[in-house]
Amino acid sequence: MHKLVLIRHGESTWNLENRFTGWTDVDLTPTGIAQAVAAGKLLKAEGWDFDICHTSVLKRATRTLWHVLDEMDRTWLPVAHSWRLNERHYGALQGLNKAETAKKFGDEQVLIWRRSYDTPPPALEPNDPRCERGDRRYSNLKPEQIPLTECLKDTVARVLPFWNDSIAPAIRAGKRVLVSAHGNSIRALVKYLDDVSDEAIVGLNIPNGIPLVYELDDNLKPIRHYYLGDAEAAARAAAAVAAQGKA
Amino acid sequence: MHKLVLIRHGESTWNLENRFTGWTDVDLTPTGIAQAVAAGKLLKAEGWDFDICHTSVLKRATRTLWHVLDEMDRTWLPVAHSWRLNERHYGALQGLNKAETAKKFGDEQVLIWRRSYDTPPPALEPNDPRCERGDRRYSNLKPEQIPLTECLKDTVARVLPFWNDSIAPAIRAGKRVLVSAHGNSIRALVKYLDDVSDEAIVGLNIPNGIPLVYELDDNLKPIRHYYLGDAEAAARAAAAVAAQGKA
Repeated sequence: MHKLVLIRHGESTWNLENRFTGWTDVDLTPTGIAQAVAAGKLLKAEGWDFDICHTSVLKRATRTLWHVLDEMDRTWLPVAHSWRLNERHYGALQGLNKAETAKKFGDEQVLIWRRSYDTPPPALEPNDPRCERGDRRYSNLKPEQIPLTECLKDTVARVLPFWNDSIAPAIRAGKRVLVSAHGNSIRALVKYLDDVSDEAIVGLNIPNGIPLVYELDDNLKPIRHYYLGDAEAAARAAAAVAAQGKA
Repeated sequence: MHKLVLIRHGESTWNLENRFTGWTDVDLTPTGIAQAVAAGKLLKAEGWDFDICHTSVLKRATRTLWHVLDEMDRTWLPVAHSWRLNERHYGALQGLNKAETAKKFGDEQVLIWRRSYDTPPPALEPNDPRCERGDRRYSNLKPEQIPLTECLKDTVARVLPFWNDSIAPAIRAGKRVLVSAHGNSIRALVKYLDDVSDEAIVGLNIPNGIPLVYELDDNLKPIRHYYLGDAEAAARAAAAVAAQGKA
Protein backbone atom coordinates (compact mmCIF):
# COMPACT_ATOMS: atom_id res chain seq x y z
CA MET A 1 0.00 0.00 0.00
CA HIS A 2 1.16 3.51 -0.85
CA LYS A 3 0.41 6.66 1.10
CA LEU A 4 0.18 10.12 -0.38
CA VAL A 5 -0.27 13.28 1.69
CA LEU A 6 -1.88 16.40 0.26
CA ILE A 7 -2.00 19.69 2.11
CA ARG A 8 -3.67 22.93 1.16
CA HIS A 9 -1.64 26.00 2.16
CA GLY A 10 -2.49 27.81 5.40
CA GLU A 11 -4.73 30.88 5.44
CA SER A 12 -3.47 33.56 3.06
CA THR A 13 -3.84 37.33 3.34
CA TRP A 14 -6.49 37.24 0.63
CA ASN A 15 -8.31 34.31 2.24
CA LEU A 16 -8.52 36.63 5.24
CA GLU A 17 -9.60 39.63 3.16
CA ASN A 18 -12.06 37.37 1.34
CA ARG A 19 -10.57 38.18 -2.07
CA PHE A 20 -10.34 35.95 -5.12
CA THR A 21 -6.68 34.98 -5.28
CA GLY A 22 -5.97 32.53 -8.08
CA TRP A 23 -2.43 32.95 -9.38
CA THR A 24 -1.80 36.17 -7.44
CA ASP A 25 1.21 35.42 -5.23
CA VAL A 26 -0.07 36.49 -1.80
CA ASP A 27 1.58 35.32 1.39
CA LEU A 28 0.34 33.49 4.50
CA THR A 29 -1.22 35.30 7.46
CA PRO A 30 0.10 34.59 10.98
CA THR A 31 -2.87 32.18 11.28
CA GLY A 32 -1.76 30.51 8.05
CA ILE A 33 1.76 30.11 9.40
CA ALA A 34 0.37 28.65 12.63
CA GLN A 35 -1.72 26.18 10.58
CA ALA A 36 1.35 25.09 8.63
CA VAL A 37 3.43 24.72 11.80
CA ALA A 38 0.63 22.69 13.41
CA ALA A 39 0.44 20.44 10.34
CA GLY A 40 4.19 19.83 10.53
CA LYS A 41 4.04 19.04 14.24
CA LEU A 42 1.12 16.66 13.65
CA LEU A 43 2.90 14.83 10.81
CA LYS A 44 6.01 14.49 12.95
CA ALA A 45 4.10 13.38 16.06
CA GLU A 46 2.32 10.70 14.03
CA GLY A 47 5.58 9.42 12.59
CA TRP A 48 5.08 10.46 8.96
CA ASP A 49 8.05 10.84 6.71
CA PHE A 50 8.60 11.68 3.05
CA ASP A 51 11.10 11.24 0.25
CA ILE A 52 10.05 14.02 -2.10
CA CYS A 53 7.83 17.09 -1.92
CA HIS A 54 5.92 18.80 -4.69
CA THR A 55 4.51 22.29 -4.53
CA SER A 56 3.34 25.11 -6.77
CA VAL A 57 5.29 28.22 -7.77
CA LEU A 58 3.17 30.31 -5.39
CA LYS A 59 4.64 31.34 -2.07
CA ARG A 60 1.66 30.47 0.13
CA ALA A 61 2.07 26.79 -0.80
CA THR A 62 5.87 26.91 -0.71
CA ARG A 63 5.95 28.61 2.67
CA THR A 64 3.42 26.15 4.06
CA LEU A 65 5.70 23.34 2.89
CA TRP A 66 8.79 25.01 4.38
CA HIS A 67 7.10 25.29 7.78
CA VAL A 68 5.96 21.66 7.60
CA LEU A 69 9.47 20.48 6.68
CA ASP A 70 10.99 22.66 9.37
CA GLU A 71 8.79 21.12 12.06
CA MET A 72 9.55 17.63 10.74
CA ASP A 73 13.31 18.36 10.70
CA ARG A 74 13.28 17.58 6.98
CA THR A 75 14.50 20.89 5.52
CA TRP A 76 16.90 18.84 3.36
CA LEU A 77 14.19 16.94 1.44
CA PRO A 78 14.01 17.56 -2.31
CA VAL A 79 11.28 20.05 -3.22
CA ALA A 80 10.04 20.44 -6.80
CA HIS A 81 7.95 23.42 -7.91
CA SER A 82 5.43 23.24 -10.73
CA TRP A 83 2.99 25.81 -12.08
CA ARG A 84 0.67 22.83 -12.70
CA LEU A 85 -0.01 22.68 -8.96
CA ASN A 86 -1.00 26.38 -8.84
CA GLU A 87 -4.43 27.45 -7.66
CA ARG A 88 -7.16 27.73 -10.26
CA HIS A 89 -6.69 30.94 -12.22
CA TYR A 90 -9.51 33.28 -11.27
CA GLY A 91 -9.34 35.51 -14.34
CA ALA A 92 -10.62 39.06 -13.99
CA LEU A 93 -11.92 38.30 -10.50
CA GLN A 94 -8.36 38.06 -9.10
CA GLY A 95 -8.00 40.67 -6.37
CA LEU A 96 -11.73 41.39 -6.04
CA ASN A 97 -13.50 40.93 -2.73
CA LYS A 98 -15.78 37.89 -2.81
CA ALA A 99 -18.62 39.48 -0.86
CA GLU A 100 -18.49 42.73 -2.90
CA THR A 101 -18.43 40.70 -6.11
CA ALA A 102 -21.46 38.79 -4.84
CA LYS A 103 -23.27 42.07 -4.08
CA LYS A 104 -22.49 43.37 -7.56
CA PHE A 105 -23.19 40.27 -9.63
CA GLY A 106 -25.45 38.37 -7.23
CA ASP A 107 -24.72 35.35 -5.04
CA GLU A 108 -25.88 33.03 -7.78
CA GLN A 109 -23.47 34.31 -10.44
CA VAL A 110 -20.54 34.25 -8.04
CA LEU A 111 -21.47 30.75 -6.95
CA ILE A 112 -21.44 29.73 -10.62
CA TRP A 113 -18.00 31.23 -11.10
CA ARG A 114 -16.75 29.65 -7.90
CA ARG A 115 -18.44 26.33 -8.12
CA SER A 116 -19.42 25.56 -11.69
CA TYR A 117 -17.23 22.83 -13.09
CA ASP A 118 -16.98 24.25 -16.59
CA THR A 119 -17.92 27.97 -16.50
CA PRO A 120 -14.82 30.12 -16.13
CA PRO A 121 -14.96 33.61 -14.63
CA PRO A 122 -14.41 36.54 -17.04
CA ALA A 123 -10.89 36.36 -18.54
CA LEU A 124 -8.08 38.74 -17.73
CA GLU A 125 -7.02 40.96 -20.62
CA PRO A 126 -3.47 40.02 -21.66
CA ASN A 127 -2.42 43.63 -21.04
CA ASP A 128 -3.99 43.69 -17.56
CA PRO A 129 -1.23 44.38 -15.00
CA ARG A 130 -2.56 41.34 -13.11
CA CYS A 131 -1.74 39.06 -16.07
CA GLU A 132 1.10 36.63 -15.31
CA ARG A 133 2.42 36.34 -18.87
CA GLY A 134 5.42 38.57 -18.14
CA ASP A 135 6.29 36.77 -14.90
CA ARG A 136 9.71 35.11 -15.03
CA ARG A 137 8.53 31.99 -13.26
CA TYR A 138 6.34 31.17 -16.28
CA SER A 139 8.95 32.06 -18.90
CA ASN A 140 9.45 28.41 -19.91
CA LEU A 141 5.77 28.08 -20.85
CA LYS A 142 4.15 28.89 -24.14
CA PRO A 143 1.95 32.00 -23.76
CA GLU A 144 -1.15 29.90 -24.44
CA GLN A 145 -0.26 27.62 -21.51
CA ILE A 146 -0.57 30.58 -19.14
CA PRO A 147 -4.28 30.93 -18.47
CA LEU A 148 -6.25 34.18 -18.52
CA THR A 149 -8.99 32.42 -16.56
CA GLU A 150 -9.87 28.85 -15.62
CA CYS A 151 -12.88 26.82 -14.66
CA LEU A 152 -12.20 23.80 -12.47
CA LYS A 153 -12.29 21.61 -15.58
CA ASP A 154 -9.36 23.61 -16.97
CA THR A 155 -7.48 23.21 -13.70
CA VAL A 156 -8.06 19.45 -13.76
CA ALA A 157 -6.76 19.36 -17.33
CA ARG A 158 -3.43 20.94 -16.39
CA VAL A 159 -3.00 19.20 -13.03
CA LEU A 160 -3.49 15.66 -14.36
CA PRO A 161 -0.38 15.63 -16.59
CA PHE A 162 1.59 16.45 -13.46
CA TRP A 163 0.02 13.53 -11.63
CA ASN A 164 0.80 11.21 -14.53
CA ASP A 165 4.32 12.48 -15.24
CA SER A 166 5.62 13.30 -11.78
CA ILE A 167 3.57 12.23 -8.77
CA ALA A 168 2.35 8.79 -9.89
CA PRO A 169 5.78 7.59 -11.14
CA ALA A 170 7.36 8.69 -7.84
CA ILE A 171 4.75 6.79 -5.82
CA ARG A 172 5.18 3.71 -8.02
CA ALA A 173 8.92 3.91 -7.43
CA GLY A 174 8.19 3.62 -3.71
CA LYS A 175 8.68 7.27 -2.84
CA ARG A 176 6.64 8.81 -0.07
CA VAL A 177 5.22 11.97 -1.61
CA LEU A 178 4.00 15.15 0.09
CA VAL A 179 2.11 17.69 -2.04
CA SER A 180 1.61 21.23 -0.74
CA ALA A 181 -0.83 22.95 -3.04
CA HIS A 182 -4.12 24.84 -3.32
CA GLY A 183 -7.85 24.30 -2.88
CA ASN A 184 -8.54 23.69 -6.54
CA SER A 185 -5.36 21.86 -7.57
CA ILE A 186 -6.02 19.47 -4.67
CA ARG A 187 -9.68 19.17 -5.75
CA ALA A 188 -8.40 18.25 -9.20
CA LEU A 189 -6.33 15.41 -7.71
CA VAL A 190 -9.22 14.31 -5.45
CA LYS A 191 -11.64 14.31 -8.40
CA TYR A 192 -9.32 12.08 -10.38
CA LEU A 193 -8.34 9.76 -7.54
CA ASP A 194 -11.86 9.22 -6.20
CA ASP A 195 -13.56 9.56 -9.59
CA VAL A 196 -15.82 12.30 -8.22
CA SER A 197 -18.51 13.50 -10.62
CA ASP A 198 -18.42 16.98 -12.17
CA GLU A 199 -21.47 17.86 -10.04
CA ALA A 200 -20.16 16.51 -6.74
CA ILE A 201 -16.67 17.99 -6.94
CA VAL A 202 -18.06 21.55 -6.83
CA GLY A 203 -19.49 20.90 -3.37
CA LEU A 204 -16.26 19.43 -1.98
CA ASN A 205 -14.12 21.87 0.01
CA ILE A 206 -10.52 21.46 1.10
CA PRO A 207 -9.66 23.04 4.46
CA ASN A 208 -6.47 25.07 4.90
CA GLY A 209 -3.42 23.46 6.46
CA ILE A 210 -4.80 20.02 7.35
CA PRO A 211 -2.93 16.99 5.94
CA LEU A 212 -5.18 14.84 3.74
CA VAL A 213 -3.96 11.25 3.51
CA TYR A 214 -4.70 8.95 0.58
CA GLU A 215 -3.99 5.27 0.95
CA LEU A 216 -3.53 3.81 -2.53
CA ASP A 217 -3.32 0.26 -3.82
CA ASP A 218 -0.68 -0.97 -6.27
CA ASN A 219 -2.68 0.49 -9.18
CA LEU A 220 -2.77 3.80 -7.28
CA LYS A 221 -6.51 3.42 -6.73
CA PRO A 222 -7.65 4.87 -3.39
CA ILE A 223 -8.39 2.42 -0.59
CA ARG A 224 -9.48 5.23 1.73
CA HIS A 225 -8.68 8.83 2.57
CA TYR A 226 -8.85 10.85 5.76
CA TYR A 227 -7.73 14.12 7.32
CA LEU A 228 -5.08 13.87 10.01
CA GLY A 229 -5.92 15.18 13.46
CA ASP A 230 -9.34 16.30 14.64
CA ALA A 231 -11.95 15.20 12.04
CA GLU A 232 -14.56 17.65 13.30
CA ALA A 233 -12.12 20.55 13.07
CA ALA A 234 -11.36 19.56 9.47
CA ALA A 235 -15.09 19.48 8.66
CA ARG A 236 -15.63 22.89 10.27
CA ALA A 237 -12.69 24.33 8.31
CA ALA A 238 -14.06 22.92 5.05
CA ALA A 239 -17.48 24.44 5.80
CA ALA A 240 -15.84 27.82 6.41
CA VAL A 241 -14.24 27.61 2.94
CA ALA A 242 -17.65 26.89 1.42
CA ALA A 243 -19.15 29.98 3.10
CA GLN A 244 -16.51 32.44 1.84
CA GLY A 245 -18.31 33.53 -1.34
CA LYS A 246 -21.55 34.70 0.25
CA ALA A 247 -22.55 38.37 0.20
CA MET B 1 30.91 36.49 -18.88
CA HIS B 2 29.26 34.32 -16.23
CA LYS B 3 28.50 35.30 -12.67
CA LEU B 4 28.34 32.91 -9.75
CA VAL B 5 27.27 33.93 -6.25
CA LEU B 6 28.42 32.05 -3.17
CA ILE B 7 27.08 32.74 0.30
CA ARG B 8 28.11 31.27 3.61
CA HIS B 9 25.15 30.71 5.96
CA GLY B 10 24.40 33.32 8.63
CA GLU B 11 25.64 32.95 12.20
CA SER B 12 24.61 29.62 13.70
CA THR B 13 23.90 28.80 17.33
CA TRP B 14 27.23 27.00 17.54
CA ASN B 15 29.10 29.85 15.85
CA LEU B 16 27.71 31.92 18.71
CA GLU B 17 28.62 29.33 21.35
CA ASN B 18 32.04 28.99 19.69
CA ARG B 19 31.63 25.24 19.16
CA PHE B 20 33.00 23.08 16.37
CA THR B 21 29.96 22.33 14.24
CA GLY B 22 30.88 20.37 11.10
CA TRP B 23 28.00 18.16 10.02
CA THR B 24 25.95 18.77 13.19
CA ASP B 25 22.68 20.27 12.00
CA VAL B 26 22.41 23.40 14.16
CA ASP B 27 20.15 26.27 13.25
CA LEU B 28 20.69 30.00 12.68
CA THR B 29 20.65 32.54 15.51
CA PRO B 30 18.46 35.67 15.23
CA THR B 31 21.66 37.44 14.08
CA GLY B 32 22.16 34.74 11.45
CA ILE B 33 18.61 35.19 10.20
CA ALA B 34 19.15 38.97 10.05
CA GLN B 35 22.35 38.40 8.04
CA ALA B 36 20.49 36.17 5.58
CA VAL B 37 17.64 38.67 5.24
CA ALA B 38 20.15 41.50 4.68
CA ALA B 39 21.91 39.44 2.00
CA GLY B 40 18.60 38.86 0.21
CA LYS B 41 17.69 42.56 0.37
CA LEU B 42 21.13 43.48 -0.97
CA LEU B 43 20.92 41.01 -3.87
CA LYS B 44 17.46 42.30 -4.72
CA ALA B 45 18.44 45.97 -4.43
CA GLU B 46 21.41 45.40 -6.74
CA GLY B 47 19.24 43.65 -9.32
CA TRP B 48 20.66 40.14 -9.00
CA ASP B 49 18.61 37.20 -10.15
CA PHE B 50 19.15 33.46 -10.38
CA ASP B 51 17.92 30.40 -12.24
CA ILE B 52 18.97 27.64 -9.87
CA CYS B 53 20.15 27.39 -6.27
CA HIS B 54 22.38 24.81 -4.68
CA THR B 55 22.73 24.20 -0.98
CA SER B 56 23.84 21.55 1.49
CA VAL B 57 21.64 19.18 3.46
CA LEU B 58 22.23 21.24 6.62
CA LYS B 59 19.53 23.58 7.80
CA ARG B 60 21.71 26.62 8.50
CA ALA B 61 22.58 26.83 4.78
CA THR B 62 19.06 25.92 3.64
CA ARG B 63 17.43 28.45 5.92
CA THR B 64 19.88 31.14 4.82
CA LEU B 65 18.90 30.38 1.23
CA TRP B 66 15.18 30.44 2.06
CA HIS B 67 15.51 33.89 3.63
CA VAL B 68 17.51 35.14 0.65
CA LEU B 69 14.92 33.80 -1.81
CA ASP B 70 12.10 35.20 0.27
CA GLU B 71 13.57 38.70 0.21
CA MET B 72 14.20 38.39 -3.55
CA ASP B 73 10.61 37.18 -4.15
CA ARG B 74 12.09 34.03 -5.67
CA THR B 75 10.65 31.35 -3.38
CA TRP B 76 9.71 29.40 -6.53
CA LEU B 77 13.28 28.93 -7.79
CA PRO B 78 14.55 25.35 -8.00
CA VAL B 79 16.71 24.40 -5.00
CA ALA B 80 18.94 21.33 -5.03
CA HIS B 81 20.45 19.90 -1.86
CA SER B 82 23.73 18.01 -1.80
CA TRP B 83 25.77 16.57 1.06
CA ARG B 84 28.83 17.51 -1.02
CA LEU B 85 28.24 21.16 -0.09
CA ASN B 86 28.16 20.35 3.65
CA GLU B 87 30.60 21.97 6.03
CA ARG B 88 33.90 20.19 6.62
CA HIS B 89 33.33 17.27 8.98
CA TYR B 90 34.98 18.11 12.26
CA GLY B 91 35.29 14.56 13.58
CA ALA B 92 35.46 14.05 17.34
CA LEU B 93 35.65 17.83 17.85
CA GLN B 94 32.02 18.31 16.74
CA GLY B 95 30.10 19.90 19.61
CA LEU B 96 33.21 20.88 21.60
CA ASN B 97 33.82 24.51 22.51
CA LYS B 98 36.69 25.94 20.50
CA ALA B 99 38.20 27.94 23.33
CA GLU B 100 37.94 25.02 25.80
CA THR B 101 39.47 22.70 23.21
CA ALA B 102 42.29 25.22 22.77
CA LYS B 103 42.85 25.33 26.55
CA LYS B 104 42.96 21.54 26.69
CA PHE B 105 45.08 20.79 23.61
CA GLY B 106 46.80 24.16 23.18
CA ASP B 107 46.19 26.93 20.66
CA GLU B 108 48.71 25.44 18.31
CA GLN B 109 47.12 22.00 18.08
CA VAL B 110 43.66 23.52 17.57
CA LEU B 111 45.05 25.84 14.93
CA ILE B 112 46.51 22.80 13.15
CA TRP B 113 43.13 21.02 13.25
CA ARG B 114 41.33 24.15 12.11
CA ARG B 115 43.76 25.43 9.59
CA SER B 116 46.07 22.64 8.43
CA TYR B 117 45.23 21.67 4.89
CA ASP B 118 45.81 17.95 5.32
CA THR B 119 45.70 17.11 9.04
CA PRO B 120 42.22 15.99 10.06
CA PRO B 121 40.97 16.30 13.65
CA PRO B 122 40.54 13.04 15.61
CA ALA B 123 37.90 10.83 13.94
CA LEU B 124 34.47 10.11 15.36
CA GLU B 125 33.93 6.51 16.39
CA PRO B 126 31.29 4.96 14.09
CA ASN B 127 29.22 4.13 17.21
CA ASP B 128 29.46 7.68 18.56
CA PRO B 129 25.93 9.12 18.84
CA ARG B 130 27.25 12.14 16.90
CA CYS B 131 28.09 9.93 13.89
CA GLU B 132 25.85 10.69 10.89
CA ARG B 133 25.92 7.19 9.38
CA GLY B 134 22.39 6.40 10.59
CA ASP B 135 20.95 9.72 9.38
CA ARG B 136 18.31 9.27 6.67
CA ARG B 137 19.59 12.17 4.60
CA TYR B 138 22.78 10.20 3.92
CA SER B 139 21.06 6.87 3.29
CA ASN B 140 21.87 6.97 -0.44
CA LEU B 141 25.60 7.15 0.28
CA LYS B 142 27.98 4.27 0.84
CA PRO B 143 29.06 4.21 4.49
CA GLU B 144 32.64 5.01 3.45
CA GLN B 145 31.42 8.18 1.73
CA ILE B 146 30.15 9.50 5.07
CA PRO B 147 33.23 10.94 6.77
CA LEU B 148 34.22 10.35 10.39
CA THR B 149 36.50 13.39 10.13
CA GLU B 150 37.88 15.60 7.37
CA CYS B 151 40.80 17.87 6.73
CA LEU B 152 40.19 20.65 4.23
CA LYS B 153 41.88 18.53 1.56
CA ASP B 154 39.17 15.88 2.10
CA THR B 155 36.47 18.53 1.83
CA VAL B 156 37.95 19.81 -1.42
CA ALA B 157 38.00 16.22 -2.75
CA ARG B 158 34.25 15.76 -2.20
CA VAL B 159 33.19 19.28 -3.19
CA LEU B 160 34.96 19.30 -6.57
CA PRO B 161 32.90 16.49 -8.14
CA PHE B 162 29.85 18.59 -7.34
CA TRP B 163 31.40 21.59 -9.06
CA ASN B 164 32.24 19.45 -12.11
CA ASP B 165 28.97 17.52 -12.28
CA SER B 166 26.41 20.11 -11.20
CA ILE B 167 27.54 23.73 -10.81
CA ALA B 168 29.88 24.08 -13.80
CA PRO B 169 27.47 22.46 -16.33
CA ALA B 170 24.67 24.74 -15.13
CA ILE B 171 26.84 27.84 -15.54
CA ARG B 172 27.97 26.67 -18.99
CA ALA B 173 24.32 26.23 -19.93
CA GLY B 174 23.79 29.91 -19.13
CA LYS B 175 22.14 29.42 -15.73
CA ARG B 176 22.69 31.99 -13.03
CA VAL B 177 23.70 29.95 -10.00
CA LEU B 178 23.43 30.80 -6.31
CA VAL B 179 25.25 28.54 -3.84
CA SER B 180 24.36 28.74 -0.14
CA ALA B 181 26.92 26.71 1.74
CA HIS B 182 29.52 26.68 4.50
CA GLY B 183 32.88 28.18 5.38
CA ASN B 184 34.91 25.22 4.22
CA SER B 185 32.82 24.04 1.26
CA ILE B 186 33.05 27.62 -0.07
CA ARG B 187 36.79 27.63 0.64
CA ALA B 188 37.04 24.44 -1.40
CA LEU B 189 35.39 26.19 -4.35
CA VAL B 190 37.52 29.31 -3.90
CA LYS B 191 40.70 27.22 -3.74
CA TYR B 192 39.81 25.52 -6.98
CA LEU B 193 38.57 28.61 -8.82
CA ASP B 194 41.46 30.89 -7.83
CA ASP B 195 44.04 28.11 -7.72
CA VAL B 196 44.93 29.06 -4.14
CA SER B 197 47.89 27.16 -2.69
CA ASP B 198 47.46 24.63 0.13
CA GLU B 199 49.30 27.05 2.41
CA ALA B 200 47.35 30.19 1.49
CA ILE B 201 43.87 28.67 1.65
CA VAL B 202 44.21 28.00 5.38
CA GLY B 203 44.50 31.74 6.04
CA LEU B 204 41.47 32.66 3.92
CA ASN B 205 38.24 33.19 5.87
CA ILE B 206 34.70 33.40 4.54
CA PRO B 207 32.41 35.77 6.45
CA ASN B 208 28.85 34.74 7.34
CA GLY B 209 25.97 35.91 5.19
CA ILE B 210 27.79 38.15 2.69
CA PRO B 211 27.31 37.31 -1.01
CA LEU B 212 30.63 36.55 -2.72
CA VAL B 213 30.50 37.17 -6.47
CA TYR B 214 32.73 35.39 -8.98
CA GLU B 215 32.88 36.70 -12.50
CA LEU B 216 34.00 33.86 -14.75
CA ASP B 217 35.13 33.74 -18.36
CA ASP B 218 33.86 31.22 -20.90
CA ASN B 219 36.29 28.61 -19.56
CA LEU B 220 34.91 29.31 -16.09
CA LYS B 221 38.21 30.87 -15.06
CA PRO B 222 37.76 33.77 -12.60
CA ILE B 223 38.12 37.29 -13.96
CA ARG B 224 37.61 38.79 -10.52
CA HIS B 225 35.72 38.24 -7.31
CA TYR B 226 34.29 40.57 -4.69
CA TYR B 227 31.95 40.70 -1.73
CA LEU B 228 28.69 42.57 -2.24
CA GLY B 229 27.98 45.53 -0.01
CA ASP B 230 30.42 47.13 2.43
CA ALA B 231 33.92 45.74 1.73
CA GLU B 232 35.25 46.77 5.14
CA ALA B 233 32.38 45.04 6.91
CA ALA B 234 33.17 41.87 4.95
CA ALA B 235 36.83 42.08 5.95
CA ARG B 236 35.92 42.61 9.63
CA ALA B 237 33.53 39.64 9.49
CA ALA B 238 36.24 37.43 7.95
CA ALA B 239 38.71 38.50 10.66
CA ALA B 240 36.15 37.58 13.33
CA VAL B 241 35.91 34.08 11.83
CA ALA B 242 39.71 33.76 11.98
CA ALA B 243 39.73 34.69 15.69
CA GLN B 244 37.13 32.10 16.77
CA GLY B 245 39.55 29.29 17.67
CA LYS B 246 41.69 31.19 20.15
CA ALA B 247 41.69 30.24 23.85
